[in-house]
Amino acid sequence: MSTASIPPGAASAAEILKRIESSRVFQWSVIFIIILSAISVGAKTYDLPFFAQRVLPVLDNSITYFFLAEIVLRFLVCEDRRRFLRDGWNLFDTIIVIGSLVPVENAEAVLIGRLLRVFRVLRLVSVVPELRSLINALLKAIPRMGYIALLMFIIFYIYGAIGSLFFSTIDETLWGDVSIAMLTLFRVATFEDWTDVMYATMEVHPLSWIFYLSFIFLMAFVFLNMMVGVILEVMTEEHNQETAEQAHQEREELAEQISHMQKQIDEMHTIMRKTRSG
Amino acid sequence: MSTASIPPGAASAAEILKRIESSRVFQWSVIFIIILSAISVGAKTYDLPFFAQRVLPVLDNSITYFFLAEIVLRFLVCEDRRRFLRDGWNLFDTIIVIGSLVPVENAEAVLIGRLLRVFRVLRLVSVVPELRSLINALLKAIPRMGYIALLMFIIFYIYGAIGSLFFSTIDETLWGDVSIAMLTLFRVATFEDWTDVMYATMEVHPLSWIFYLSFIFLMAFVFLNMMVGVILEVMTEEHNQETAEQAHQEREELAEQISHMQKQIDEMHTIMRKTRSG
Amino acid sequence: MSTASIPPGAASAAEILKRIESSRVFQWSVIFIIILSAISVGAKTYDLPFFAQRVLPVLDNSITYFFLAEIVLRFLVCEDRRRFLRDGWNLFDTIIVIGSLVPVENAEAVLIGRLLRVFRVLRLVSVVPELRSLINALLKAIPRMGYIALLMFIIFYIYGAIGSLFFSTIDETLWGDVSIAMLTLFRVATFEDWTDVMYATMEVHPLSWIFYLSFIFLMAFVFLNMMVGVILEVMTEEHNQETAEQAHQEREELAEQISHMQKQIDEMHTIMRKTRSG
Amino acid sequence: MSTASIPPGAASAAEILKRIESSRVFQWSVIFIIILSAISVGAKTYDLPFFAQRVLPVLDNSITYFFLAEIVLRFLVCEDRRRFLRDGWNLFDTIIVIGSLVPVENAEAVLIGRLLRVFRVLRLVSVVPELRSLINALLKAIPRMGYIALLMFIIFYIYGAIGSLFFSTIDETLWGDVSIAMLTLFRVATFEDWTDVMYATMEVHPLSWIFYLSFIFLMAFVFLNMMVGVILEVMTEEHNQETAEQAHQEREELAEQISHMQKQIDEMHTIMRKTRSG
Repeated sequence: MSTASIPPGAASAAEILKRIESSRVFQWSVIFIIILSAISVGAKTYDLPFFAQRVLPVLDNSITYFFLAEIVLRFLVCEDRRRFLRDGWNLFDTIIVIGSLVPVENAEAVLIGRLLRVFRVLRLVSVVPELRSLINALLKAIPRMGYIALLMFIIFYIYGAIGSLFFSTIDETLWGDVSIAMLTLFRVATFEDWTDVMYATMEVHPLSWIFYLSFIFLMAFVFLNMMVGVILEVMTEEHNQETAEQAHQEREELAEQISHMQKQIDEMHTIMRKTRSG
Repeated sequence: MSTASIPPGAASAAEILKRIESSRVFQWSVIFIIILSAISVGAKTYDLPFFAQRVLPVLDNSITYFFLAEIVLRFLVCEDRRRFLRDGWNLFDTIIVIGSLVPVENAEAVLIGRLLRVFRVLRLVSVVPELRSLINALLKAIPRMGYIALLMFIIFYIYGAIGSLFFSTIDETLWGDVSIAMLTLFRVATFEDWTDVMYATMEVHPLSWIFYLSFIFLMAFVFLNMMVGVILEVMTEEHNQETAEQAHQEREELAEQISHMQKQIDEMHTIMRKTRSG
Repeated sequence: MSTASIPPGAASAAEILKRIESSRVFQWSVIFIIILSAISVGAKTYDLPFFAQRVLPVLDNSITYFFLAEIVLRFLVCEDRRRFLRDGWNLFDTIIVIGSLVPVENAEAVLIGRLLRVFRVLRLVSVVPELRSLINALLKAIPRMGYIALLMFIIFYIYGAIGSLFFSTIDETLWGDVSIAMLTLFRVATFEDWTDVMYATMEVHPLSWIFYLSFIFLMAFVFLNMMVGVILEVMTEEHNQETAEQAHQEREELAEQISHMQKQIDEMHTIMRKTRSG
Repeated sequence: MSTASIPPGAASAAEILKRIESSRVFQWSVIFIIILSAISVGAKTYDLPFFAQRVLPVLDNSITYFFLAEIVLRFLVCEDRRRFLRDGWNLFDTIIVIGSLVPVENAEAVLIGRLLRVFRVLRLVSVVPELRSLINALLKAIPRMGYIALLMFIIFYIYGAIGSLFFSTIDETLWGDVSIAMLTLFRVATFEDWTDVMYATMEVHPLSWIFYLSFIFLMAFVFLNMMVGVILEVMTEEHNQETAEQAHQEREELAEQISHMQKQIDEMHTIMRKTRSG
C-alpha cells in the first residue's frame, strides 16, 4: 500500500487514527453526539430557563467542533483521499458540518444556520449502516416511479387548467390560477374537505361533480396500478434471482449424477468398440 | 413497396419527409412545442401584463399550425394511409388538432375552444413512447375491474335507494333523490365529514349507524379484495410467462444431456444385437 | 331420468319450459326487467309528474308477477325440485319475490315493502353468472378474516371502555357509554375530524394523545398485517396449484425420456446376462 | 416424572386437577367468564338501575376470585413450576389477576383498579389459541418495521423542528414546540384538516406548501415502500420454504429413477470388465 512509503512514525500515527476511527467506542460516541445535537435542536423550540439558554450555544459549538474533528479524522483515514467527496454520504456530511461553521450575523443567516443545525439530525442516517442501506433502497425505487409521476403531473395540470378555466370566478382562492388549482386538486386527492370544494362549484355548474369524481377515480386508478407495478417489479427481481440460484443448484446436482453415468457409459462404449473391432 | 410506382422525384421527396419525421431534432421540437402549448394554457389563467396578452393568441395560433403541419407530415409519411386513423393515438391527435382549428365566435364556443387547447397537453402522452405504453397498460387493466365496478355500482345504488327512502325528509340536500344520495355515499366512502352526515340521521333514526358502518365495511371489503385480485392476476400472468420460460430452458439442457447418452446407448444397443446375432 | 315416467305430452311441455328457461332471449329479458325494476325503485325517490305516479305502481306489480312467473318456471324446470331451495341463490330470489307479494296496509309495512323492492336490484347479482362467482369468491374470503375481526373488536372494546372511563365527563355525546365510545373510535380510525376529538380531551388529560396515537398505530398495524396475510394466503393457494401442475408435467416428460432409456438398458442387461451365462 | 415421588393420594389429586384443567367444560367456562367480565366492564359505563348497581360489584369480585382460582389451578398443574412465569402469557394473566386483587381506597386507585378490570378482556387473547398465534405473528412482524419506524421518526423530528422554527409565531397551539409540531405533522399525515394548517402558514410564508407537500410525499413514499417490503419479505420466506420442499421432493424422485439405472449400468460395467479380462 501507499503507507509503505511513509516513515514509520507517521505510519503508526495513521494506524492509531484508523484504530480510533474503527473502534466501537468512537462510533457509538458519534451516534451519541448526533442524538445530543438532535435534542439540543429540539430543546431550543421550548421556553428554556436562563441557565439552559446559556449552556445550549456552548453545547452547540462543541458539537460543531466534534463533527469537524470527526470528518477530518475520516478524511485522514480514507484510503483514497481524492475520492472522499465522491461518496455521496461523505459529501453530505461535509456540507452539513461546514455549513454549521459559517459565522452568522444578520437575522436571515441565523435562520439558515438553525436550519443547517436541524439537518445535522440527518447525519444519523449516514452513520447507522442499516438506515443507510434503507435510504439507498428507497433512492433506487425513485426512477421506477418516474414516468408514473410524470403522468400524474400531466393529469393534475390538465384538471388544474380546466378547473381554473371554469371555476376561477366562483372561488378565487381555490381556483385563481393553474398552480393554486393544482394545490386544490391535491387537497381533493387527499379527500380533505373536498365536498365543500365540490358543493361550492356545483351551485354554479350542477354537473361539476363529474370533474371531481373522474379526477378521484383517475388518481385512485393510476395510484393503485403504480402500487401493483412496484410490488410486481421488486418481486420479479427478487424472484428471478432466487429461482435462478435454485435452478442452477438443482441442475448442477443432476448434471453431476448424469456425468457419472456418462463416464461409465463412455467406458462401456470404448470396451465394446474394442471388443467388436478386436 | 408502393413507393416503387411513384416517380423518382416524388420518391425522394417522400424520403426527405420521412427523414425529417424520424429525426431526433423533429421529435424533440414536437415535445418542446407541446410543453410550450401547456405553458401557454396555464399562463392564461394568470393576470397577465398587456404585452403577454397580445403575444399569447399569436403563439396559440402558431402552435395550432405547427401541430397541423406535424399531423399532415405524419399522415404523408405513414406507409398505409388508409389505416392512419385506425390507430387510436393518431385519431386522438387528429381530433385534438382539428378541434383547435374550428373558428370560435360566441362565448360558449370560446370555452370549448379553450378546453380543446387544454387537451393538447395530453398529446405529450401520445408523443412520449414510455407514457404511451404506460397508458396502454392502464387501459388493459380496465376490463379486469369491470365486474367489480358493476358490483360496486349495485351496492351504491341499493344503499342510495335505501338512504333516500329513509333520510330524504331529514336532509333534502344530501338524500333528496337516489343520485344525490349516491354522491353522499361516495362522500361517506372517502370518509369526508361522514360523521356529520351520520349524526344528523342518527337523531331521527338512532340505529342508522348500522347503515353507514355496513356500507363502509362492504366498500372496504370489496375494495381490498379487488386490489388483491388485481395484484394476483397480474402476478400470475407474469409468473406464468417467467416460469414457463425457465422450465423450458432447464428441460432443454437436461434433454440435451440425456439425448447424448441416448445416442451412445443406441449405438451400444445396435452393437450388442449385432454381436448376439453375429 | 325421472322424465321417462311422465307421459309424452307432459314431457314435451317440460321440454318447452326448459327450452324457454335456457333461451338467451329469456335470460336477457330477466336482466332487462331487473334493471327496469331498479330504475322504478330509483324513480320513486324523485318528484314525479302525475302521469308517472300512476304508471309506476302498475309497472311495479307487473314486475312482481313477472318475477313470480320466472321463479315458478325455474322451479318447474329444476331437475331435483326438493333441493331447489337448498341453493342459496334460489332461496334468496324466492324470499325477495314472495316478500314483494305480501299485501301492505299500514305505513310501517309500506316502508318494509319498499325496502324489499330495493333489494330486488340484488337479483342482478344472482342472474349474471360473473357477479355470482365474484360474490362467491368474496364470501369465501370472509372466514379468513374472522379472527382478525375478533381481535379488532377486542381492541375496539378495550379502548372504548377506557375512553368512556376517562372521557365520559368531558363529552357525553362522544364518550357517554362503551358503544358510543366505540363509534367514536371508528370515527378516529377513519381519521374523520379525529384531532377535534383529541384536542377536546387533551385539555383535561394532556397525555391523552397517547390513547389516540396508540390506537391509530395498533389499527394501522393490524390492518396492514391483515392485508398482507390475505394477499399471501390467496397467492400461496394459487401458486401451489400452479407449481404442482407444472412440476408434474415436467417430471412426466423427464420420466418418459428416462423410461425409454431404461427399456433399452433393460434389454442390454438381459442380453449380457444371457451372453455371459450362454 | 417428579409425580413418582409424591404419595399416591396426592398423585391422584394432581391428576384430577389436570383432568379438570384440560376439560372442555372448564376451558369454555373460562372463556364465558372472561366475556362476562367484559360485559360487566362495559355495563358500568351506562346509567344502571339500582339493582344492577348492587349486583355488579359482587359479580366483579366473583370473577376476580374465579380468575385467581384458575391461575392457581394452572400453576399447580404446570409441569415445570419454576418456568411458569417465564411464559409471557402466564405472566400477563398473573399480573392482570393480582392487579385486580389489590384493595382500592382513594379515587386515584379506583381508576387504576377499573383500568386493570378493562385489561381483563385481553385475557380472551391469551385463552383462545387462534388469537394467541395471531398475536405471536403480529409481534414477530414488529422488528421487521423497526428501522423504517426509526427513519419515519427522524423525518418527523426534522420536519417538526423546522415547523416549530418557522411557524411557532403563527400558531402557538400547532407549532409551539417540537413535540406539539410532531403531533400536528401526524395530523397532516392522516390528512385531517391539513389544508387549514397549511393555509394558515401560507398567509405568512407563501411557499410553505412545499413543506407540507414534500412531507406528505415523503411519508407516502416511505410507507408504500414499507408495505411492499413487508409483503415481499413474508412472501419470500413462505416461498423459500415451499419451493425448497418441492424441489427436494422432485430431486428425490428423479434421483431414485437414476440410481435404479445406475445400479443396472454398474452391473453391466462389472460384467463387461470381467468379460474382457476373462
